[in-house]
Amino acid sequence: MQLRLCSWLEVERYLEASTGIIIPIGSTEQHGPNGLVGTDALCPEVIARAAGEREEIMVAPTLSIGMAQHHLCFPGSVTLRPRTLMAVVYDVVQSLARHGFRHLYFLNGHGGNINTVQAAFAEYYADYSLHETPGCETSTHLHLGNWFAGNRVRALSAELFGDAEGSHATCSEVSLTQYAYPEAIKQVEMSPRRAPSGGFRDAVDFRRNYPDGRVGSDPSLASPEAGEKLFEAGIADLLDDYRQLLAR
Amino acid sequence: MQLRLCSWLEVERYLEASTGIIIPIGSTEQHGPNGLVGTDALCPEVIARAAGEREEIMVAPTLSIGMAQHHLCFPGSVTLRPRTLMAVVYDVVQSLARHGFRHLYFLNGHGGNINTVQAAFAEYYADYSLHETPGCETSTHLHLGNWFAGNRVRALSAELFGDAEGSHATCSEVSLTQYAYPEAIKQVEMSPRRAPSGGFRDAVDFRRNYPDGRVGSDPSLASPEAGEKLFEAGIADLLDDYRQLLAR
Amino acid sequence: MQLRLCSWLEVERYLEASTGIIIPIGSTEQHGPNGLVGTDALCPEVIARAAGEREEIMVAPTLSIGMAQHHLCFPGSVTLRPRTLMAVVYDVVQSLARHGFRHLYFLNGHGGNINTVQAAFAEYYADYSLHETPGCETSTHLHLGNWFAGNRVRALSAELFGDAEGSHATCSEVSLTQYAYPEAIKQVEMSPRRAPSGGFRDAVDFRRNYPDGRVGSDPSLASPEAGEKLFEAGIADLLDDYRQLLAR
Amino acid sequence: MQLRLCSWLEVERYLEASTGIIIPIGSTEQHGPNGLVGTDALCPEVIARAAGEREEIMVAPTLSIGMAQHHLCFPGSVTLRPRTLMAVVYDVVQSLARHGFRHLYFLNGHGGNINTVQAAFAEYYADYSLHETPGCETSTHLHLGNWFAGNRVRALSAELFGDAEGSHATCSEVSLTQYAYPEAIKQVEMSPRRAPSGGFRDAVDFRRNYPDGRVGSDPSLASPEAGEKLFEAGIADLLDDYRQLLAR
Amino acid sequence: MQLRLCSWLEVERYLEASTGIIIPIGSTEQHGPNGLVGTDALCPEVIARAAGEREEIMVAPTLSIGMAQHHLCFPGSVTLRPRTLMAVVYDVVQSLARHGFRHLYFLNGHGGNINTVQAAFAEYYADYSLHETPGCETSTHLHLGNWFAGNRVRALSAELFGDAEGSHATCSEVSLTQYAYPEAIKQVEMSPRRAPSGGFRDAVDFRRNYPDGRVGSDPSLASPEAGEKLFEAGIADLLDDYRQLLAR
Amino acid sequence: MQLRLCSWLEVERYLEASTGIIIPIGSTEQHGPNGLVGTDALCPEVIARAAGEREEIMVAPTLSIGMAQHHLCFPGSVTLRPRTLMAVVYDVVQSLARHGFRHLYFLNGHGGNINTVQAAFAEYYADYSLHETPGCETSTHLHLGNWFAGNRVRALSAELFGDAEGSHATCSEVSLTQYAYPEAIKQVEMSPRRAPSGGFRDAVDFRRNYPDGRVGSDPSLASPEAGEKLFEAGIADLLDDYRQLLAR
Repeated sequence: MQLRLCSWLEVERYLEASTGIIIPIGSTEQHGPNGLVGTDALCPEVIARAAGEREEIMVAPTLSIGMAQHHLCFPGSVTLRPRTLMAVVYDVVQSLARHGFRHLYFLNGHGGNINTVQAAFAEYYADYSLHETPGCETSTHLHLGNWFAGNRVRALSAELFGDAEGSHATCSEVSLTQYAYPEAIKQVEMSPRRAPSGGFRDAVDFRRNYPDGRVGSDPSLASPEAGEKLFEAGIADLLDDYRQLLAR
Repeated sequence: MQLRLCSWLEVERYLEASTGIIIPIGSTEQHGPNGLVGTDALCPEVIARAAGEREEIMVAPTLSIGMAQHHLCFPGSVTLRPRTLMAVVYDVVQSLARHGFRHLYFLNGHGGNINTVQAAFAEYYADYSLHETPGCETSTHLHLGNWFAGNRVRALSAELFGDAEGSHATCSEVSLTQYAYPEAIKQVEMSPRRAPSGGFRDAVDFRRNYPDGRVGSDPSLASPEAGEKLFEAGIADLLDDYRQLLAR
Repeated sequence: MQLRLCSWLEVERYLEASTGIIIPIGSTEQHGPNGLVGTDALCPEVIARAAGEREEIMVAPTLSIGMAQHHLCFPGSVTLRPRTLMAVVYDVVQSLARHGFRHLYFLNGHGGNINTVQAAFAEYYADYSLHETPGCETSTHLHLGNWFAGNRVRALSAELFGDAEGSHATCSEVSLTQYAYPEAIKQVEMSPRRAPSGGFRDAVDFRRNYPDGRVGSDPSLASPEAGEKLFEAGIADLLDDYRQLLAR
Repeated sequence: MQLRLCSWLEVERYLEASTGIIIPIGSTEQHGPNGLVGTDALCPEVIARAAGEREEIMVAPTLSIGMAQHHLCFPGSVTLRPRTLMAVVYDVVQSLARHGFRHLYFLNGHGGNINTVQAAFAEYYADYSLHETPGCETSTHLHLGNWFAGNRVRALSAELFGDAEGSHATCSEVSLTQYAYPEAIKQVEMSPRRAPSGGFRDAVDFRRNYPDGRVGSDPSLASPEAGEKLFEAGIADLLDDYRQLLAR
Repeated sequence: MQLRLCSWLEVERYLEASTGIIIPIGSTEQHGPNGLVGTDALCPEVIARAAGEREEIMVAPTLSIGMAQHHLCFPGSVTLRPRTLMAVVYDVVQSLARHGFRHLYFLNGHGGNINTVQAAFAEYYADYSLHETPGCETSTHLHLGNWFAGNRVRALSAELFGDAEGSHATCSEVSLTQYAYPEAIKQVEMSPRRAPSGGFRDAVDFRRNYPDGRVGSDPSLASPEAGEKLFEAGIADLLDDYRQLLAR
Repeated sequence: MQLRLCSWLEVERYLEASTGIIIPIGSTEQHGPNGLVGTDALCPEVIARAAGEREEIMVAPTLSIGMAQHHLCFPGSVTLRPRTLMAVVYDVVQSLARHGFRHLYFLNGHGGNINTVQAAFAEYYADYSLHETPGCETSTHLHLGNWFAGNRVRALSAELFGDAEGSHATCSEVSLTQYAYPEAIKQVEMSPRRAPSGGFRDAVDFRRNYPDGRVGSDPSLASPEAGEKLFEAGIADLLDDYRQLLAR
């Protein structure tokens, strides 16, 4: 069930049966020569929507812009400052909690979002912890899960790509988007086969270190077939994790 | 051309030919008994993407969460505080300007966003107007257009629905989403046929005044057929307006 | 009744009889060769104070600095950033609501303030709409009226100046300040007679487009006599609109 | 010279001869049974404008709302939060500096503003001290003077009222407003003759300690005659201090 | 009693007997050729801890970074922006008030902190003064005392150093750190013997005016012996002042 | 070398030889029945200072207050909101970078700080990545290391305490503070021997789950002897990691 395609009466009915919701959160940033700028938003979106259909779970609209400052030297990358993303997550949480959603599962597609989203959760909790009324607490459970870090997905990725998976513009995420958007598959030569690995600071530093945008990966290995397997693994991982959240 | 489906190399190539981009911006909020919670995001999204395909214009990911505080008493509505939405627009503008986009067309689907987005534009310009370096200016043109306010769309809406169009959960926007998402058409009785009209303040006040969420409209008149006409009118209006922006 | 000239005991007594107050809000910005830098603050101030005297309505001190970023290339213009003006409006509203004022009428003299003040109103309402206590609402009514946009004033302006009225440094506002401050009337040649019209972005762009600061107007047509008529029309428009606010 | 009554051309001419400006800053807050809510804004305003006329000094519009949180239990008091007032001062300073004003004299009427305005000055300087470009500095001189703390005014106040002057709703400030606004003189019995003295925290605490709003004063001693003497002393003190600022 | 060396059970027990706490607050900034960068944090820390041991008063960890923008041209100086320091003080106050601390004594070592800390106190109080619930107040007493401004310390300093005390990198503070940290005594020639006096704006301006960092002082007169006397005087001043706070 | 015990001339000299600095960062929060409230600040402080002495590395004053919202139901815990801590880290980084420090090593003692500090780093980098001047970058390297997560420390902890180490109020951190502050060792019975494990949300939830404050640990196993070994391991881990940072 996609929140955007429901009427408010349908949401009201849903809330009588469940207090859970999945919020896909990603980023709009370069993903190397053959990866899509929208990769990190598309991956959690397709997994969340499919899981939502199969199990009648409400899925919120995707938060497509994340914290991507280090990619700003590659055209098309868009970032929110960490403090902006924190405010977005805070307001979304408050809005959903207002309606009685109690188990908010953010399904994330971008490693660079993790610190900021967790800091936003802490900001939300802190308002209760510092509340002038003693004993005041929130009944909202906030959880951040990364589609690429579930057990099944990680095992499959290791099996399919080994060390060539890399850490940005990975074989897995490129495969998943190739499966979901076959019309947007790009054929690009990449050299070297595997991109260099390491750290980075700001956008200039990132581009100097990773001239075509990839980090540690060889996404020429990506395929729609691998993508389909990762898609199924991602759904299964998500559903397991989501049920654990609901059980709290 | 959807930014999310391009690689950064394709964006780089696009920028050699054009400095324009369309950013759909909407809201996630109740739209009455038969309207979709995502209406205000879906409408500009479908128009922008179609226009983008036809004329090879870059279209950014949709900003799906807007300023919808007054709808918070209806389940499923999500709002950003005005200051949060301003920060989002500011950061998106800065990111796109960083790459050389010079003509940013925000195609808006929600009247409640207008003041805040315009205030965000002023915030961006103010940083240049107050810049410590005299004579400093930005070359970025920011424009907000409302898909529902173009000449063709307004004429068509008046012809199709007259006074029953209303001002929230309008016949036109419900029609457009019915055309775009026929699988999500709802059959709901509404009483009275036309909803009351007037003002509102916060969410409690809004719901008291407009018990089923509509303002002034009778969206039982909506149809996918009307939606298709509005879709075409919206694309034509947008393309006219976008070309004017590019010409500045 | 001017708030600044009352004692708190007098305000206390006033509140037993009325919950209304008028807050003039303007800007400090260039108004062309013969207009006053204070025009946008002076106009609502003189109208509000006169209306307040005639009908015993409380009038707050004028908020003289508004959102005027685009005028910063003309000496004497002063701006608040949109986020600053929003914070000012928010704090003023909270302060007045604290005392039992329930109908706050902001009489505005500057088009450039409108988006930001409305966004500030939404920020205030959002705190109630997102309140952790379900059903929480504010009893405060916030209204923004523009002295230059009332029915009588617009009719009179059209009659007196027609198309030469323009949109910045208008004949009407220059006339009104000439009536209110005859000692400050400037005799300046202007060329061309009517200023160009159009849009603008930041301060450098504005000055390039409008070299002497006027937009679309020929304020050499202004006169104290016209100003007196506009003054009376403005008072009548304001009183009508204010009574409607009180009736909510 | 009042900025609000000048055209931008006159300001441009002024700046060729001088880089100084006086900005009256006050507060809108209760001033006891016979004091005006606007006292703290009116006092610096009348002194600054008179000084400005006599010596052709530019005087900005009065910032009438200050930091008055502790007076909020008395009807009519209005406060900005400290962070809001800081932002206002910051933006005003930046705007004036943009035009070439280099010596900004804030003439203050409210003790409760001092810390916040000084913190705002530090915020402005800090942007230069922390600037990424080494050696970057501002040429703007920021100064806060209190009209009630000049040598002549303090001597006169001591002579006229001795210990009955008090620290809030003082004899001196009530006298000055009686001189400037004789039509607004209030006749009110006060008991005890002299108000209690001491500290305070928030608004409830203040009102508990000072039931009629005065602190340490017996403003029944105030008179327009004393006000006139204080007016002249205030002008002389200001002009001395302003010249010292210009000489830096 | 140092908070950092207690367990929470010990803090719980302490709160049954007392609601007071001392929070040392200082700065990390140059203190001339023979003064320590940590002087302003070390001085209140050693006095507070000793007083805390002698009288079983809880002493919080030292806030070592203050508002020191004007020292940024001297290596090792670190500043918080005023708004950052305000947020720190605000959050610390809220945290301590949450546990039942009602008398918070900030013992300050840096004149440059005063305005900002007082503005932070006002920010805290303002949240109660503007509270939507009428009559809402805080029971927290906030007090800022300066170790260098107590009666005993000032008398002693005048006796020991007279005019050579100065206003930054003073003989007294250098002496106190020499007593507390004899291993860090520096032997440096200074010329001129007494540093110049006056004002300053940003960091470049400060360094231009005070080339070796001192203002008005001759800290070559400092000695550990003088430091010991000042240490005892500071403790006595603090205990007097703290008891007065507790008595409120 | 402790920054607080240096003069600015000594810092200047240091910068000629090195651009590195270690900033201990911790928290002030309950650490179970026998742990110190200051544990998370004391641990990185003692390790950093010892490493600094041995290898002549500059060590900044400890940032003793961190992000500890979840501990607020235990007396003595103090938190900064995430956004406050971000501002602190940002300002400290800017200050140190201003002087030429290029390798900033934050040695952290509190898991709850990690997300927020990393988000602050991203906020700092984002200002360069979004800079209006293309190609603008910072030369500052920001690194966060956790004293408890180095190879030697983890191996030693596993060897000494196995599963009883836990994740809050761990055997290792209690041991280290017992070694560093033997005068503050507490003898407290704890039941159960090992605390429960799991997650938490706000402060009420944390205390409900972990009634005496420990998470997963049995700190009755802690000893000063173990603390000494961890101290040495922590220094060695830090020096390795710091040298790697310098080499970038």
